[in-house]
Amino acid sequence: MEVAPKIAPSMLSFDFANLASEAYRMLNLGADWLHMDIMDGHFVPNLTIGAPVIESLRKHTMGYLDCHLMVTNLLDYVEPLTKAGGSGFTFHVETSKNNWKELIQKIKSHGMRPGVALKPGTPIGDVYPLVEAENPVEMVLVMTVEPGFGGKTFIPEMMDKVRILRKKYPSLDIEVDGGLGPSTIDMAASVGENCIVAGSSVFRAP
Amino acid sequence: MEVAPKIAPSMLSFDFANLASEAYRMLNLGADWLHMDIMDGHFVPNLTIGAPVIESLRKHTMGYLDCHLMVTNLLDYVEPLTKAGGSGFTFHVETSKNNWKELIQKIKSHGMRPGVALKPGTPIGDVYPLVEAENPVEMVLVMTVEPGFGGKTFIPEMMDKVRILRKKYPSLDIEVDGGLGPSTIDMAASVGENCIVAGSSVFRAP
Repeated sequence: MEVAPKIAPSMLSFDFANLASEAYRMLNLGADWLHMDIMDGHFVPNLTIGAPVIESLRKHTMGYLDCHLMVTNLLDYVEPLTKAGGSGFTFHVETSKNNWKELIQKIKSHGMRPGVALKPGTPIGDVYPLVEAENPVEMVLVMTVEPGFGGKTFIPEMMDKVRILRKKYPSLDIEVDGGLGPSTIDMAASVGENCIVAGSSVFRAP
Repeated sequence: MEVAPKIAPSMLSFDFANLASEAYRMLNLGADWLHMDIMDGHFVPNLTIGAPVIESLRKHTMGYLDCHLMVTNLLDYVEPLTKAGGSGFTFHVETSKNNWKELIQKIKSHGMRPGVALKPGTPIGDVYPLVEAENPVEMVLVMTVEPGFGGKTFIPEMMDKVRILRKKYPSLDIEVDGGLGPSTIDMAASVGENCIVAGSSVFRAP
């Protein structure tokens, strides 16, 4: 595989009241990225954190903040997240059908790294144009649970999406998010993902 | 005055990466409540924190968590915030015109304390029905800045709203939020507010 493997612990499993020390702990344990779940209570039925929290956390860490935006009004978040210190900006293909070119351009011009995510019910073909564009995304995030809350069960059928993506794009960063734990990480890695979002199945394991 | 004075430091001025220790510090300094600004990026152009953060913080403090909901879909938040450990649930009159009776009922039946907030441009009369209802709110929050971000300038004209409310309702909790600092707290107290949300003008003062 040409792509570097990465592990990105998910904030949804953190103690939100001690994010700075949670970040230290994760990076000290070998985390490559910190996965920040930004939900607005509209695109998904949960509201988590926004740019002010990223901004506070950035003052405590130099780590890569892998922001996953589960929000509807994506363009509004580019500037606040850049100022806050976000590193990656992964948006959902379902909410960017009409403006993904503008969005990718804006994310890059603000110095962040664009990625595209898709929900379990969304066909994998929907992301091809964004990967093959003249100004493409640099990562695809395959949701392996329905987004909104931590602790959900991994959907193994999503591995087909990863397999297809890896075959088409040998050097693309492919991230998987949701229900990844000791029993599913190997399966995901064997079909070609290289970025694991590790959530409750890792951090809340017995 | 029949009502007890209270000071509620605003989370918007806290270090979001160290909320547990920020809460300890505030309560140790004499804070009565901790004011939690919940914004969804739709009702206001900022996204801050939601129930998962309240839930984490609750594990570290027994303090009164005075939740101020700047969100559109209010009913969806009652159950998550109750489970998370919220104490007060203050909603905006602008987003509850059609369901405030149901909302107050639901907040109370879930063991939280209902309050109603109004933006600077909203007439004070809009909250009277909620204070005078058979099943009323127990607090009115008068916004003294346009909500969305910390650090804004206090609008002195809002003191008329406080004066009118206090005259009509001698024993009502009246909270003021936005731009309250050394130079404006006295003004607000003199016209009858009894709960001060202390934000950046206190905590980021020179």
